[in-house]
Amino acid sequence: MAITVVGSVALDTVETPFGSVKDALGGATSYFALAASRYDQVNLVAVVGDDFPEEYRRTLSARRISLDGLKVEPGQTFRWGGRYHLDMNSRDTLFTELGVFADFKPSIPASYAGADIVFLANIQPELQLDVLRQTGEGAKLRALDTMNLWIEIARDALTEVMRQVDVVIIAEEEARQYAGAPGLRESVRRILALGPKWLVIKQGSYGALLFDSGGGFFAMPAYPLDEVRDPTGAGDSFAGGFLGYLASRLADGAPLTAGDYRRALAHGNIMGSYACEDFSVRRLLTLEPAEVAYRYREFVNFTHFEGSWRDGEAAG
Amino acid sequence: MAITVVGSVALDTVETPFGSVKDALGGATSYFALAASRYDQVNLVAVVGDDFPEEYRRTLSARRISLDGLKVEPGQTFRWGGRYHLDMNSRDTLFTELGVFADFKPSIPASYAGADIVFLANIQPELQLDVLRQTGEGAKLRALDTMNLWIEIARDALTEVMRQVDVVIIAEEEARQYAGAPGLRESVRRILALGPKWLVIKQGSYGALLFDSGGGFFAMPAYPLDEVRDPTGAGDSFAGGFLGYLASRLADGAPLTAGDYRRALAHGNIMGSYACEDFSVRRLLTLEPAEVAYRYREFVNFTHFEGSWRDGEAAG
Repeated sequence: MAITVVGSVALDTVETPFGSVKDALGGATSYFALAASRYDQVNLVAVVGDDFPEEYRRTLSARRISLDGLKVEPGQTFRWGGRYHLDMNSRDTLFTELGVFADFKPSIPASYAGADIVFLANIQPELQLDVLRQTGEGAKLRALDTMNLWIEIARDALTEVMRQVDVVIIAEEEARQYAGAPGLRESVRRILALGPKWLVIKQGSYGALLFDSGGGFFAMPAYPLDEVRDPTGAGDSFAGGFLGYLASRLADGAPLTAGDYRRALAHGNIMGSYACEDFSVRRLLTLEPAEVAYRYREFVNFTHFEGSWRDGEAAG
Repeated sequence: MAITVVGSVALDTVETPFGSVKDALGGATSYFALAASRYDQVNLVAVVGDDFPEEYRRTLSARRISLDGLKVEPGQTFRWGGRYHLDMNSRDTLFTELGVFADFKPSIPASYAGADIVFLANIQPELQLDVLRQTGEGAKLRALDTMNLWIEIARDALTEVMRQVDVVIIAEEEARQYAGAPGLRESVRRILALGPKWLVIKQGSYGALLFDSGGGFFAMPAYPLDEVRDPTGAGDSFAGGFLGYLASRLADGAPLTAGDYRRALAHGNIMGSYACEDFSVRRLLTLEPAEVAYRYREFVNFTHFEGSWRDGEAAG
């Protein structure tokens, strides 16, 4: 039972062609927790300043999200500001004010012991290693996310985290950057050679790929959204749906199968797609279970085709 | 029976990080015909100069490709030179020497009458319209490809071609450029509103999407190639696999189903992926039927997941 997630809680100021928000609830763990808590209990580990709105705390704690590990320090909450361009695929960071997040030292509360899954959201690899030490060997599944900055300035520590986790969840360009190989498949081989059993490649608006250390491969296109209002947090919501679904399967007691991982990728894509439909975490809050189920059926429908082609006959 | 294709035959000079070729067989109709002729008879309509190597003519005519419509004019064959960057997703055009292609006036030979499918490869929309006039209402399926240049300088004529065809096959950025809508789905609606029943969006190394005028949607990821040696012609090979498969289904006599179009998308992706494995059209020449069948089964396997998730239970 339960997923422990360690990373940032932030106040986001975002402009897109469809509108803007100021100091809205953001940060990797907020998106992750709101997505994953639909599937299982989430234990959140992060730090905020004493300016963090009580309203946002209630937003989180009203779900299956424990805030025992949310430390409040004197000072400012991490603030991020960004502006998206018309095609929504590129954005400019307008400001990054780390505030109390600059001195974040994750501390796992005793009440979080026994979590099945530990998710190391995008923070310094040294801190990710410290979380792995604190959580010990107890978790059934340990997963990480990262970013280009750590690949540049903390490569060795990141490599060590990769050696210790079961699942690496990473954007395609970061996988290529980390592995330094010309082809994606060679990059995948180099990362899986470090030890993880699973590698999830996030491709943004193109979907996600799933590789396993036994050579298995699965691909899922993204949901074709009618309107992307704010893509912030889509990757973290994806991780929340992906690991949340796996947590719900672990709670059933059976070992995870390759089929579970494939279905988990669908849930990741579902949460990522809904997150884009409104600013900040809004859509994750209004989302109804029936909407998740409906989009799941849509995913099944728009990716399946009949495999009964007369092999080799038509193509001479 | 048969597919008529109208477009370019060229001599390509290509450099990639994996090697180079000079004056190799290229052009949209060469790739298209070599892919599609695996499924059905192909009628080629193009023009070359009197410098066109006899060897290349034999390469084409050794397959189910009629060259009755390949005109030879005094002068140079269309030559194109390009250089790919390390990531293979961007390229620089080094030269474009149109030669006799500058005055190309497609003329459909009488021997091509009765073709089930007409494919208007990427040429001036005015010439595409002329081909539609020459081929009349006889064909069961008429499809077009185009490029950014025609969207810029011949938009009205292109719109008229779109009104007259059944299938538009177009790169994602060109669909967005043509429709001028912020979202892809709105771009799709605007194009389908012109009249085509089907719209295929090519996403390069990310796969392809299929939309129909009834609101249906299907997505297929690309094949995860180990090594891309030369992506030139991948889109035309895709069109060849896609329409070639549909031609083989039409030859069976039954009306085309949505399932046929989905399977056709797989065949498009298969031909596009193989085309990238070697320079020029080489891989399309060495490709064995068993390799097509094997990759088809791989596509089935790496895109399918079980749809039996307990809807709405796990996500509260």
